[in-house]
Parts: sequence; C-alpha cells; structure tokens
Amino acid sequence: MRSTTCFNCSDGERAAFELGIKLASFFHQYLGAPINLGNVDSMESAICEGILSQPFVTDAEISLDREEIERSVSGFGYCSLSERMMAGRVTIVYEGMEAVGELGWAEEMRYPLMRVVSVGPHGQKNDMDLE
Amino acid sequence: MRSTTCFNCSDGERAAFELGIKLASFFHQYLGAPINLGNVDSMESAICEGILSQPFVTDAEISLDREEIERSVSGFGYCSLSERMMAGRVTIVYEGMEAVGELGWAEEMRYPLMRVVSVGPHGQKNDMDLE
Amino acid sequence: MRSTTCFNCSDGERAAFELGIKLASFFHQYLGAPINLGNVDSMESAICEGILSQPFVTDAEISLDREEIERSVSGFGYCSLSERMMAGRVTIVYEGMEAVGELGWAEEMRYPLMRVVSVGPHGQKNDMDLE
Amino acid sequence: MRSTTCFNCSDGERAAFELGIKLASFFHQYLGAPINLGNVDSMESAICEGILSQPFVTDAEISLDREEIERSVSGFGYCSLSERMMAGRVTIVYEGMEAVGELGWAEEMRYPLMRVVSVGPHGQKNDMDLE
Repeated sequence: MRSTTCFNCSDGERAAFELGIKLASFFHQYLGAPINLGNVDSMESAICEGILSQPFVTDAEISLDREEIERSVSGFGYCSLSERMMAGRVTIVYEGMEAVGELGWAEEMRYPLMRVVSVGPHGQKNDMDLE
Repeated sequence: MRSTTCFNCSDGERAAFELGIKLASFFHQYLGAPINLGNVDSMESAICEGILSQPFVTDAEISLDREEIERSVSGFGYCSLSERMMAGRVTIVYEGMEAVGELGWAEEMRYPLMRVVSVGPHGQKNDMDLE
Repeated sequence: MRSTTCFNCSDGERAAFELGIKLASFFHQYLGAPINLGNVDSMESAICEGILSQPFVTDAEISLDREEIERSVSGFGYCSLSERMMAGRVTIVYEGMEAVGELGWAEEMRYPLMRVVSVGPHGQKNDMDLE
Repeated sequence: MRSTTCFNCSDGERAAFELGIKLASFFHQYLGAPINLGNVDSMESAICEGILSQPFVTDAEISLDREEIERSVSGFGYCSLSERMMAGRVTIVYEGMEAVGELGWAEEMRYPLMRVVSVGPHGQKNDMDLE
C-alpha cells in the first residue's frame, strides 16, 4: 500500500524514513550537552521521553555510556555528550509496518552508525538483532 | 534486494531511511543559528555543502526564507534560524534506488513537515513533485 | 583581583563571562528539542541538571512555558522547543564574585534576551531583580 | 559606568558577558555539523559570518582544524565537527569597553576552553595574547 497524502512511497519505506528522522534528531539535538555521572540518568530520561513524543514512535531506549563519560570528564567535572557515548534503539509503527533501528558507535568504522534492524509487518517476529 | 551488512531492509527502505537522517540532521543541527539578510547566502551554502558531504546524497537544495528572516530580525539586527525559515530537498541514491524528500514549513499544520517525494529505481522518472 | 592563569580580566568580568556561556549553551543546545506537556517536566530537569554540572554554577532554575507549548503543539502531538518557551536564571560564583543572569523571551523586542541581573561580592545582597 | 536598561553591571562585565554568549553559541550551535576537507572552508565562513551578525561583535576569526578533520573522517567520507576541531577568537565592544576571548581545545585539560584574553577600554593596547 502507498503512503498517503503528501508522501509517495510504500508504508515500509515511510516507516524507515520516520526511523531515520528520529535517530538523527537524537544525535544532532543532544550532541554537546553537558554531562557527567551525576546528571546522566536525567538526560537519558529526557532524551527518551522526547523521542517518544515524536510521531509514530512506539518504543525508545536510550543508553549513554557511563564508562566513556567517566573517561571523558575533565578537571572541570563534566564533559560534552559525544558520539562515542550515544546509543539508542527506536521502534516506529506506520500503518501496520514496523521499523526498528539503532544508533551506536562503531569503533571499527570510527563512526556513529545509524542502522535499520528490521522493517516488516507489526506484530510479526521480524526484529532480528544482527549484532 | 536486501540492504547489506548490518542493515536488514530493502534498498528502497534503506534509501528512505538515509533520507530521513539527512532531513532531520539539517533541521536539528542548524535551527537556532544566528541569521540575517547579510549572512543567509553563506549559511545556505554551508548547510547545503554539509549535506552533500554525507553518505548517499547525490543532490541537495537548501532554501532559507528571506522574507521570514526579514520579518523576524529584532532590533539587534539578527534572529535565530527558525523552523518557518527552513526548506530543503535532498536526493539519496542507494544501490540503484533513489529517494527524494523535502523539509518545509506546512502552515496549515503549523509543522516543519519532512516528507518523501518519491522512492524508486534511479534513472527512471519517479520524482513527481506533489506540491 | 585579576582572574588567574590564562584569563586576563577581573573576577567580576570572569563571573559575567561564565554566566554568558551558561545562558547561551542552554539556548543553543536545547532549542529544537521535541516537547509537549507530557515530557516538559523531564526536559526541564535534565536541562537544569546539565547547567548545574558546568563549572562555577551554584544555582540554576529553568522554566519552559507550558502555555506556549500547548499553543504550539501541532496535530502530531508535539512541537519543537522554541525561543518563546525558554526561560531560566543561572547563578555563577567565581573567586567570591557572584553573577546572576537570566534568559527570557522579551515580547516587546521579539528577542530571547540574555541579561545580567547582578554582579557583586557573593554573600552580599546584590541580586536585585529588575523585572 | 553601569550597563544600561535591564542590565545591572559594569560595561566591562557586560562586554565579558556578551563574549561568553558568543563563544558558547559557536560551540553548541555547530558541534556535530557534517564536515570534511571539501566543505570546511564554507562552514568556517558561515560560522564566522553568523557570529559577526550578533550584537556587539566587532571581529571574529574561526578556525576549524584541517588535520584533526582529516584524522577523523570515516570511511563514509566525512565526520562530525568535534570540540577538538573548533577554535575561534571573538572581539566585543560595548560602550567603549572591549573584550577579546577565545575558544580552543586545551589538550592538557582535555577541554574545549573558553577564555578571556583581555577586557579594557577599546582603542588601547590591551589585547595581550597570553598563549
């Protein structure tokens, strides 16, 4: 089935599109935020709730790497949220199609990789984690 | 054909995913930048070249609304780049599949809408602009 | 007394400098974050704790305007954190000098004004709110 | 002389406050922007012109570290603008008082240090670079 109104693609493509939006907004919105072990729980919750407020998101998990934060904190007692610290998984459901994706630091590529874990009919077992 | 390595989706879905990433990074990265009629050309070019540096992007057009900027400039001579000023079109080609999408302010929704204009085999005429 | 090491200014100037940094990082870091009445408490706390993690900050209050958020939420159920929604007050203490400042939307200027409320010796009554 | 209207501080403190705002807006606005050797000139110009559009700025120099960018570019051909790549110097003049400041990566502190180079009457030789 084609995506409606002003979208011209399949529902699976639309779900994947929305997924890309959410992962990139996580990355570009919060990169650089001041962080340490004292406020990481609060920041994680706020980021996660922010993503859950966006359209078509049915699930979100955000994980900020405490070990990397601890390594990165300067003598001033905090550091800036960096691409190496950010990981998350987001689930989109659009018109019965589910897309699951992740953001995480890929050390071998030295890259904050955003990837599609699965796209398929919602309710089926299509969430194969490939790691 | 399935998208390779650590992606688990069709090439069209992958192209749509990459499209969503680029539109959202445009929005969340540059929203808030200081702008007026004197630096809008420079900012437009830099945003556009930034998007073109990202993977799978074959074309990008960025348009910052001069009239809205002029209306928004305060007595201090500049304003912050807002969602009403930002518009752009990005083309992704992934493994022969092309996805075209746009960001633009939709006044009737009061929303900075990101939408898929088309997804299809690259080289075919599938870029139907729906506006 | 002069500010030490690689700073070449008075302690009051240094406190004012640090104050400007904190107000601008609040504004430029979080502008654009997805927000609605459901996640505003969480976002407010995270922003506030982030500021408190930064050097020389002894107090921070953040207030995101619920009425403006409610007015701005689109049919998709959320909006982007805008300059009209953001308000805050930060206190810096540097070497015995206290600087207090605020960010808030000034409707008559149509501008997110950052201003110095007071600079003076910490512990004295110099925090005259001018509003 | 006291800073006017809704500011309650000396002109030197006000100049230092404005300086902190500009350095922090540079850092938090552009951190994370997609960058490589092909678009670094364009990004540098846009950032610089953006700062020059802000109030009380009389001079700005921005320098994005090409060597660090080259080292950081992934197999995807670009990287995200990081705190190690960002350097700049900004001059503020407020009511005859000049404040000069810098942002730059301080490797020994592992910190993107914002510092005041000088504050003093404009037109005098008070811009002693302490590096």
